[in-house]
Amino acid sequence: MENTVQKKKTLIDDLIGALTCLPGVGKKTAQRMTYHLLQRGKEDALNLSDILKETVLKTQNCKSCRTLCQGEYCEICSDPSRNDDVLCIVESPADIMNIENSTNYHGKYFVLNGKLSPLDGIGPNEIGLDMLDEKLSSGKVKELILAVNYTVESDVTAHVISNIALKNSIKVTRLAQGVPVGGELEYLDQRTLSKAFEKRTLY
Amino acid sequence: MENTVQKKKTLIDDLIGALTCLPGVGKKTAQRMTYHLLQRGKEDALNLSDILKETVLKTQNCKSCRTLCQGEYCEICSDPSRNDDVLCIVESPADIMNIENSTNYHGKYFVLNGKLSPLDGIGPNEIGLDMLDEKLSSGKVKELILAVNYTVESDVTAHVISNIALKNSIKVTRLAQGVPVGGELEYLDQRTLSKAFEKRTLY
Repeated sequence: MENTVQKKKTLIDDLIGALTCLPGVGKKTAQRMTYHLLQRGKEDALNLSDILKETVLKTQNCKSCRTLCQGEYCEICSDPSRNDDVLCIVESPADIMNIENSTNYHGKYFVLNGKLSPLDGIGPNEIGLDMLDEKLSSGKVKELILAVNYTVESDVTAHVISNIALKNSIKVTRLAQGVPVGGELEYLDQRTLSKAFEKRTLY
Repeated sequence: MENTVQKKKTLIDDLIGALTCLPGVGKKTAQRMTYHLLQRGKEDALNLSDILKETVLKTQNCKSCRTLCQGEYCEICSDPSRNDDVLCIVESPADIMNIENSTNYHGKYFVLNGKLSPLDGIGPNEIGLDMLDEKLSSGKVKELILAVNYTVESDVTAHVISNIALKNSIKVTRLAQGVPVGGELEYLDQRTLSKAFEKRTLY
């Protein structure tokens, strides 16, 4: 006898399929997660299910800076103690968390939620450049910090944003490039080394 | 001004924390998953939340073979066309899926849901050996296939199970050991090569 009968799909198969919506999770990993949750983590799984639904339903984009938050305005935008005269441009809400954890920055943020990519249909309005233009033309912002990635696509985005800022006579800065902390010159790629050499600072 | 004020925990932080219950997911990965779901996968996330809860609430252990299933008895145990005279012992429900997908096996299964590990408090009853003993003494089973892992801990478990079977005069077999398909002898570890040499078969 052969197993020619088509197996009917079970809830477990559904859960395996649903878990593959997570980034970096393929069928094999989803299968391992499913059996782990069902065998040893039922309470954790129920907790995850509830928090996932609640967070998705209650989270929206801040009306001022476009980050993800619970109310209409995020904590940082509604904090009166933060400076209004410096605006830091980031590509994703996760970058805000990183900058907050590693620096003393006390200005505000603006989240692009992506970068310019005309081939994928992501133009200036999709990354909120219309909102940004409005914000910058109000005259409050004195310095704009470009904290976007150092990739070719982000370079284009940075260039377009700097033009908007310069049009409004706002000073534009971008994160320093150079040797990473703990980095050894021997293992540094040529372009980073060349940048670090070119932008060397007084010691 | 310094950021000395303690940030209050948001729903996003809760979701990041909850996702770390998944195996192989640390804080950094959970953060990436959270922002991915909230930025680009809200529908997938709601779907995942529902399926996760439903599966956890409706899934239980089969009363006959201890695998995970929806009803009291799993599909395989309640399938009258499957042979009752061969029983395949596996460590986890995921192994059943693998064996079903790669072999023509048409007998039944028994799931240990673990392996003997006295130091972790996992004794014979925790892996269902009392149930297995009862099953084997009924006299229906003629062959017991040990499809457990080939690790030191699983070897002990296999030995204990084989004793139960032999006590009931049941033939015991274990998965063959040898060179994996596509394997090159040059890269094979010594113990596998030694086993493959010792267990060589007629060509």
